[in-house]
Amino acid sequence: MSNIVDIIRKKREGDRLSPAEIEYFVSSYTTGAIPDYQCSALLMAIYFQGMDFEETTALTQAMMHSGKVLTLSRIKQPIIDKHSTGGVGDKVSLILAPLVASCGVCVPMMSGRGLGHTGGTLDKCESIPGFNTQLTVRQFKKQLSTIGVAMVGQTSEIAPADKKLYALRDVTATVDSIPLIAASIMSKKLTEGLDGLVLDITFGNGAFMKDYRKAKTLARTMIRIGKRSGVKVTAILTDMNNPLGEYVGNALEVIEAIEALKARGPDDLMKTTYALGAAMLRIAKIKGGKKMLEQKIHSGEALAKFKQIIRHQGGDIRVIDDYARLPVAEKKISIRAKKSGYVHAVNTFQIGMQLIALGGGRRQKNDTIDPSCGFKIYKKIGDCVAGGERLIDIYSAQPRARNTVAKTLQNAFTVRKHRCNPKILLRETLP
Amino acid sequence: MSNIVDIIRKKREGDRLSPAEIEYFVSSYTTGAIPDYQCSALLMAIYFQGMDFEETTALTQAMMHSGKVLTLSRIKQPIIDKHSTGGVGDKVSLILAPLVASCGVCVPMMSGRGLGHTGGTLDKCESIPGFNTQLTVRQFKKQLSTIGVAMVGQTSEIAPADKKLYALRDVTATVDSIPLIAASIMSKKLTEGLDGLVLDITFGNGAFMKDYRKAKTLARTMIRIGKRSGVKVTAILTDMNNPLGEYVGNALEVIEAIEALKARGPDDLMKTTYALGAAMLRIAKIKGGKKMLEQKIHSGEALAKFKQIIRHQGGDIRVIDDYARLPVAEKKISIRAKKSGYVHAVNTFQIGMQLIALGGGRRQKNDTIDPSCGFKIYKKIGDCVAGGERLIDIYSAQPRARNTVAKTLQNAFTVRKHRCNPKILLRETLP
Repeated sequence: MSNIVDIIRKKREGDRLSPAEIEYFVSSYTTGAIPDYQCSALLMAIYFQGMDFEETTALTQAMMHSGKVLTLSRIKQPIIDKHSTGGVGDKVSLILAPLVASCGVCVPMMSGRGLGHTGGTLDKCESIPGFNTQLTVRQFKKQLSTIGVAMVGQTSEIAPADKKLYALRDVTATVDSIPLIAASIMSKKLTEGLDGLVLDITFGNGAFMKDYRKAKTLARTMIRIGKRSGVKVTAILTDMNNPLGEYVGNALEVIEAIEALKARGPDDLMKTTYALGAAMLRIAKIKGGKKMLEQKIHSGEALAKFKQIIRHQGGDIRVIDDYARLPVAEKKISIRAKKSGYVHAVNTFQIGMQLIALGGGRRQKNDTIDPSCGFKIYKKIGDCVAGGERLIDIYSAQPRARNTVAKTLQNAFTVRKHRCNPKILLRETLP
Repeated sequence: MSNIVDIIRKKREGDRLSPAEIEYFVSSYTTGAIPDYQCSALLMAIYFQGMDFEETTALTQAMMHSGKVLTLSRIKQPIIDKHSTGGVGDKVSLILAPLVASCGVCVPMMSGRGLGHTGGTLDKCESIPGFNTQLTVRQFKKQLSTIGVAMVGQTSEIAPADKKLYALRDVTATVDSIPLIAASIMSKKLTEGLDGLVLDITFGNGAFMKDYRKAKTLARTMIRIGKRSGVKVTAILTDMNNPLGEYVGNALEVIEAIEALKARGPDDLMKTTYALGAAMLRIAKIKGGKKMLEQKIHSGEALAKFKQIIRHQGGDIRVIDDYARLPVAEKKISIRAKKSGYVHAVNTFQIGMQLIALGGGRRQKNDTIDPSCGFKIYKKIGDCVAGGERLIDIYSAQPRARNTVAKTLQNAFTVRKHRCNPKILLRETLP
């Protein structure tokens, strides 16, 4: 067995690492036998030299087996999860998990916290008073058996290698690497004992992958890793050059998700949710597709399932009918268009960053979040706008932050005289 | 000022770092404010993206000013040093320092320990009983005023940034980077308050830079850095596809150096020594060149100067006339040619590595060295050899190590039937 310096040098030179070398690296790093400084040098070498499919698979497997792997064999329904590579205003999971579960699919939704400019499902759930996302593996399994769905955080027992590697990548500028991203996502998801997985791979200025082709490569890599592990993976490439839906911000997005479950969701949000949901049903071999999903929304069954989730996880179910129980900042200011025309671009990344500036996201790992702040988005790319019309509202209890953010977002919308086509939201489905 | 993650990302993207960013990185890393794991990620990014001349100069300056800078203004002679990028059997410094000092040049020779497969001047000096290489800055300066030459190690006061960075590079496979090597060497040398510096830039299988063109780029970089700092630099590119001289190993090389000072040195060793010495005299504007150097050897003045060095640094001067006072292993085995022909290649790197295997070099930073072991080299590239003739002798007190090394070195010499030209030892002088 080579030592870690040889492994770093090998990757630096562009050679392929063997599964044994990758397994040695991951397990030794997890136990602390390999120090951070050697690991970060290797990660940077991987950033530059990449990893081929065999290496990426070996990395995924090693990370997956660094902790507990769930055995959900007692669950008889098909077990399907969804994962998104992140966006701004992306509250799809909150709608999708209860919706698909109400169709008879078991949805073990293990999610993350907000990351960089993108929001996280856990943070959103926690704006519901009492909602506990930190279930033990036992509680998680029990809830899946009882109501077929749960929305939880990754426990320390699951893929600890990923947790440690992710924290290091975050502070060493080695996040944006396709094999590292693919292995990070898939190693966690494969611990769930899934039958299938639907990926929402975002691209555009509100996503981590700005570039469409890179997003596609990432999608293909994860589909192949899934195949190798016997998990059917579908990936939908979605455009994140606009925020998704009308609201951005934790409590505001929970309200929007509940509204969606009450059949009052905005078009783009519903379109994405239905596409992902239909893909999940397809893998689960449940017939009905989009029609079935719409029916579950209109019948109130999806909403009832969401209520069940909240109740089982200790949350206040009264929020469903009384939004005043959710912490939303009352004060807001509006940014209005200076001239008439069409929206040509929205700086979605900046909107995400400004949520952090308001306190609605994290600058550092242990920051606490203010769930009450956020934005309402009035216009998207392709929309026409009259001079003086509202573009975006800023919700915040802090007048100073509100004003600073308003100043920064003044130019977040590019309005020009000539027409502009709206973006195609669902760009491609793979494979 | 950007934070360190932004600096890593910037370099990763191939952008140029500002002098302020480089100064921030070096000083914060030296104090410990930037942890090793971020530093190693940046070093790997530098490995891949390189640094332009302005960045390399800023790095050199920042590392140089991380500690004490000598002021030798009271010394009236020209102050000239020599540095080699390392080789196998390279004992030039032991001959050159007293030789050039005997010509009226002040030679503040601050050297390193053995590194990887290459030997270090300090280790060689220390095989002389009592010889102390760890002078304080004060003692060092005093000795330079008195006898015009000293052979010392880098104290902890000198360029601490380099010390810390070098240790990290060694364990993260980020040594082989031209800007990092250039800055490391020049930052130390520039603290000596030099008028001039002569570089022995080695290339070939016994050097760190195998590639001639890379070695040339390194030489050019250091010449430019010197120019910028007002230090005249000459670089000689020397071929290290053969060990230099006849002996490899600490005490054996000291004997060979003393023999050279007694005018009995082998041709290749003397050729290199004279070329480097003549370049030092040229910068010092002392006329005489190679002839003067030869005269100082033949008159015994150079040897007398070496005696002075030993005496001032606490060593046993009796070694000069009584080699039995130096620790040399008595037992040896010879490797002989299996067939007649010409030497086409010598695995010089392997010979260096096998010195480590015998205990004559370090595997880890704090290993102690056995100065008594080593090799005698009988043949070089281009030499003809009869079947059964000796190629190399292995000196070691340990029968087991001796045998293992003999096995490994069995194929260190490539002998073929047809003739082969010897290597050109001194390939080029720059600028």
